[in-house]
Amino acid sequence: MDRRSFNRRLMAGGAVAATGVTSLSVASASSAAPAPMAAEAGPKRAPAGGKVHHLTMVAERLGTGKIGYGFEKGKASIPGPLIDIVEGDTVHIEFTNLTDVDASLHVHGVDYDIANDGTRMNKSHVEPGGTRTYTWRTHRPGKRADGTYREGSAGYWHYHDHVVGTDHGTGGIRQGLYGGLVVRREGDILPDKQFTIVFNDMQINNLPGAQSPNFEATVGERLEVIMITHGEYYHTFHIHGHRWADNRTGLLSGAGDTSRIVDNKITGPADSFGLQIIAGEGVGAGAWMYHCHVQSHSDQGMAGLFLIAKPDGTIPGYEPHHPTAKKGATDARGAGAQGAHSGH
Amino acid sequence: MDRRSFNRRLMAGGAVAATGVTSLSVASASSAAPAPMAAEAGPKRAPAGGKVHHLTMVAERLGTGKIGYGFEKGKASIPGPLIDIVEGDTVHIEFTNLTDVDASLHVHGVDYDIANDGTRMNKSHVEPGGTRTYTWRTHRPGKRADGTYREGSAGYWHYHDHVVGTDHGTGGIRQGLYGGLVVRREGDILPDKQFTIVFNDMQINNLPGAQSPNFEATVGERLEVIMITHGEYYHTFHIHGHRWADNRTGLLSGAGDTSRIVDNKITGPADSFGLQIIAGEGVGAGAWMYHCHVQSHSDQGMAGLFLIAKPDGTIPGYEPHHPTAKKGATDARGAGAQGAHSGH
Amino acid sequence: MDRRSFNRRLMAGGAVAATGVTSLSVASASSAAPAPMAAEAGPKRAPAGGKVHHLTMVAERLGTGKIGYGFEKGKASIPGPLIDIVEGDTVHIEFTNLTDVDASLHVHGVDYDIANDGTRMNKSHVEPGGTRTYTWRTHRPGKRADGTYREGSAGYWHYHDHVVGTDHGTGGIRQGLYGGLVVRREGDILPDKQFTIVFNDMQINNLPGAQSPNFEATVGERLEVIMITHGEYYHTFHIHGHRWADNRTGLLSGAGDTSRIVDNKITGPADSFGLQIIAGEGVGAGAWMYHCHVQSHSDQGMAGLFLIAKPDGTIPGYEPHHPTAKKGATDARGAGAQGAHSGH
Repeated sequence: MDRRSFNRRLMAGGAVAATGVTSLSVASASSAAPAPMAAEAGPKRAPAGGKVHHLTMVAERLGTGKIGYGFEKGKASIPGPLIDIVEGDTVHIEFTNLTDVDASLHVHGVDYDIANDGTRMNKSHVEPGGTRTYTWRTHRPGKRADGTYREGSAGYWHYHDHVVGTDHGTGGIRQGLYGGLVVRREGDILPDKQFTIVFNDMQINNLPGAQSPNFEATVGERLEVIMITHGEYYHTFHIHGHRWADNRTGLLSGAGDTSRIVDNKITGPADSFGLQIIAGEGVGAGAWMYHCHVQSHSDQGMAGLFLIAKPDGTIPGYEPHHPTAKKGATDARGAGAQGAHSGH
Repeated sequence: MDRRSFNRRLMAGGAVAATGVTSLSVASASSAAPAPMAAEAGPKRAPAGGKVHHLTMVAERLGTGKIGYGFEKGKASIPGPLIDIVEGDTVHIEFTNLTDVDASLHVHGVDYDIANDGTRMNKSHVEPGGTRTYTWRTHRPGKRADGTYREGSAGYWHYHDHVVGTDHGTGGIRQGLYGGLVVRREGDILPDKQFTIVFNDMQINNLPGAQSPNFEATVGERLEVIMITHGEYYHTFHIHGHRWADNRTGLLSGAGDTSRIVDNKITGPADSFGLQIIAGEGVGAGAWMYHCHVQSHSDQGMAGLFLIAKPDGTIPGYEPHHPTAKKGATDARGAGAQGAHSGH
Repeated sequence: MDRRSFNRRLMAGGAVAATGVTSLSVASASSAAPAPMAAEAGPKRAPAGGKVHHLTMVAERLGTGKIGYGFEKGKASIPGPLIDIVEGDTVHIEFTNLTDVDASLHVHGVDYDIANDGTRMNKSHVEPGGTRTYTWRTHRPGKRADGTYREGSAGYWHYHDHVVGTDHGTGGIRQGLYGGLVVRREGDILPDKQFTIVFNDMQINNLPGAQSPNFEATVGERLEVIMITHGEYYHTFHIHGHRWADNRTGLLSGAGDTSRIVDNKITGPADSFGLQIIAGEGVGAGAWMYHCHVQSHSDQGMAGLFLIAKPDGTIPGYEPHHPTAKKGATDARGAGAQGAHSGH
C-alpha cells in the first residue's frame, strides 16, 4: 500500500495508539473500531506479519537544544513516533533531514544490511536537506538449515540518531532523536494503550523534571509501556502498585515460566524492554507514581504519574494541583503518551 | 488470630528465621519444631496461603543518623524485620511513627490500594507519634476472565520509607528505614536460614565497612539470601564458591529452565532478588567472601563473610582475628542475619 | 594426560579457537580437523565431560602498567587464555607468579575448595617467583538426595587476580590479570570462532580507545563472544545488526523459551555472559560495530568492529583506513580474538 493510504488508515482509528500519524500500529489495519472487551472474546492479538510498510520520517528542530523525529514536517515529537509491527513485516522509511547538521536513523533489534546502519563510518547518514530510504526487515522464529533454532525479531526495540554531535550520536540522542519500535509475534496480546517512557540522562522524554509526563488510563485497561534508556547514566525504572515479567513480552507465558516478576529494573543506555499491566488490577484507581529509584534522580524530578481513573473518571485521593503533582501535566505530556486520550 | 498470639507462635520456634519477633515466617505456623532433614523427607515447602496477619511496626531512632523499623518499640533494627508470607496471605500492619519527622511504609511487589501507598502525595504517611494501619494483599497466579494468565505475587520484595528527607524517602532510606519481604508460592522450597543483605550506598546493612556483617552456617544447610539495593549507586553482588539461578526463586525449576546461573549480578536502587544456596555444596566449609565487585566499593569495605563450618564447628583456614576478617563480626551482625543462631 | 601432550593436541588444530596454546578448547580432543559444515550434519556439539586437564599458567609483566596471564612464560596476553571445558571436567592449573608482587588466580562459577580461593585471607595467593596448583572442578546438573534439582556448572565464567594492589585485586584487574572460562553442557552447540571481550574500566581488553580490537569472520560462521566486565564502571554492551538471547547459552532453546532477545545489555564489574551469533545472518557482510552504549564511553573509544566478510573476502562499504576505523586494527588485536585467523 502507498504511504498516504497507510496513514489515512491509521488516522481512521483502532483501539491501539490511535493518535493519527504519531504512531504506526499493527492493530490499525485489522480493526478500524475498538474491539469488544467482553471476557469471552479474549484480548486482541497480533495478526500474522508479512506486510510492507512505506513511511516518511523527518528530523527537525523543536526549539533550543531539541530535535525530534516525526512522520511529517511540523509533527516531530520527543520521543519520535512509535512504530509497532509484526514479525515478517518490512518497513521502508523515507527519511528527510530538516536540520542543519548531518543526521541518521539507526535501529536496534531488527534486520538491516550495512547500507542501512545509520552510521557515518558506513556512509549511511543524511546531510542537511537530504533524503535517504532506510529499510528494516523482521523475521519469524524458525529452524535453520542445520536444525538449530533461530530466534524471531519480536521485542521492544528502538531507533535513534547515530551521527549528531559525535560518531555515536551523543548530541542527537541528547536533543531528542529517538523513538520506540515494537515488533510483535503473531498471537501476542495487544494493549489498549501504549506509552513510551525514555529515561534520557536526567530527564524523562527530554522534559524538565517539573514537567515529567503523566499518563492517563481507566481501571481495567491493558497498558503497554515501551521503556527505553539513553544517555550517560544508569537508572532503575519503578512503578507503584503494578509489576511485570522480566522476559520478552513483559507477561508470563504460564505457570512454567520462571521469569522474575519485578516492579523495579536496572537499565542502562540503549537498553529497552516492554511491559503490559492491567491498570489498577488488584489495587484500584489512583495516582500511581512511576519514577527512577536512584534517589538523587527521583529527587531531581525523574518521576511521573499513571493517573488511573475509575470508570466514572474520578481518581481517589488525587488533587491535580497538589504541589507534588506536575503542573499542567496533561498539556506537558509529550508524544510518549500515545493514545492517552482514546476512550476519554 | 490476634497479634500477640501470632508473635508468641513465632517465638515458639520453627526452623526458619526463628529469632522471636525479629521476623515473620511462613514456617512458624505449620511447624513448631524443626522438620527432620532426612533426605527421603525432601525439603520443607511453603504451605498454602490465605492467612491474615496482624502486625505492629514502629519506626524509631537508633542513634545519630540511624532510624530503623521494628515489630516493637525498642526492637528496631537495620534492616527491619523480615516478613515472609505466602501468596494469598494478607498483612495488616499497625505502624507507629516514634521518630520526630513524618515517616511511612511503602512496599514493593504486593497489592495495596492507593491509601496504603506510603507517599506524601497520597497522604498515606504518618506524622510523629501517629499510627496508621497499612494493608498489603497478595494473590496466587491464575487466569483472568479473558483467559490471559495473571502472574502471582511471589517474589523477593522489600519495604521502605517514602517521605523522610524528600518525597522519595531519600533520607529515611539512607538512615535505615528498609526491610525485606518474601512472598512464596505454595510448594516453594523453604530455607533453613535466611539472611537479608542490603547494599545501601557504600555500606552493607548501614554498617561501616570495617563492620560489614558476617553470616554463619553449617555445611549442608539451605541458606536464603534476600538481596536488596538502596540509595544512589549501582553495585554487583558476588559470592565466592556459590552461585544461583537468575530467576524468580533463585533455583532452577529443572533441566528445561534456561535461566542463567550467576555468582555476580548487577543491581541498582530498589532492585531486589533472592537466592538459595546449599552451604558449602561441592566446595566444603570455609570463610567464603561475599562482596560488591565494583572494585572501589569492595576496597572501601563492602565485603563480608559466609562463615560455613564443618559439622564439628570448625572452619578450615579461618582465623577470626585475621586482619582482613571483621573484628567482632558476630556482635556487629545486625538484623540482616535472621536465624543465624538457630542450630548453634 | 600430561600437560605437554595436551597443548600439542591443541596446537594440532580443531575448528574452535585453534590458536595453539592461547586457549584450551573442548573441541580439540574430539576433532583434530574442522568438522564439515554441511547443513545435514548439524552444528558441532560439546562432548561428554569428565576429563582431567593439567595446565600451566604464569602471570608476567607485559610492559608499564600491564600484567597478563599466559599458558607459558613469554606468552602472556590480555585477556589471558580462554579456557573452554565441559561439565564434569576438572582443571589443575600449576600457576607460577613471574611478577614482583603477590598474585593469585580466583575463578568464578566453578567448584573449588577454600584453599583454591585465590585470596590473601585464605592464604591462597602466590608470592613472587612462587608456584601453586589451583584445582577447579565442575559438575553436571542432577538431583540431590532430597529430590531437589541441582544446577550444573555450565556458564560463561572468568578468572582474575584477587590480591594485586588490594585484597580485592583491584590493581591486578586494572593491569590485565583476567581471562575467560567457558563451561559447556554436553550437547551445547559449539562455535566456529570465539572472541573474548572485556570492558575493563574505560578500555576494551586493556587497549587504548584508538586500538580497540576488531574481530574478523566470514558470513555464516557461528561466532561466540565471551563478554566480561571489570573495574569500576557499569557499561552497556551493544552489537550492530546482531542479537542474542539473555539466558544461559545466549541461544533460545526453542519456541517455549521466553527469554528476552537483546542487542544491548547493562553489565557491571565481574558480570559475564556469553552469546552466539551467526555472522551476518539476515543482514549480510559488513563492518558491524560493537560498542559500549554509554555515550561518553563510546565517544572515548570503547568501540570496535566485527569485520564480517563475504566468502570472497570483501566487506561491503568498508575502508580499512577510514578515519573512524581503527588504525592497524588487525595488528592491534589482542588475545581477545581467539581463532580470528582460522579459515583465512
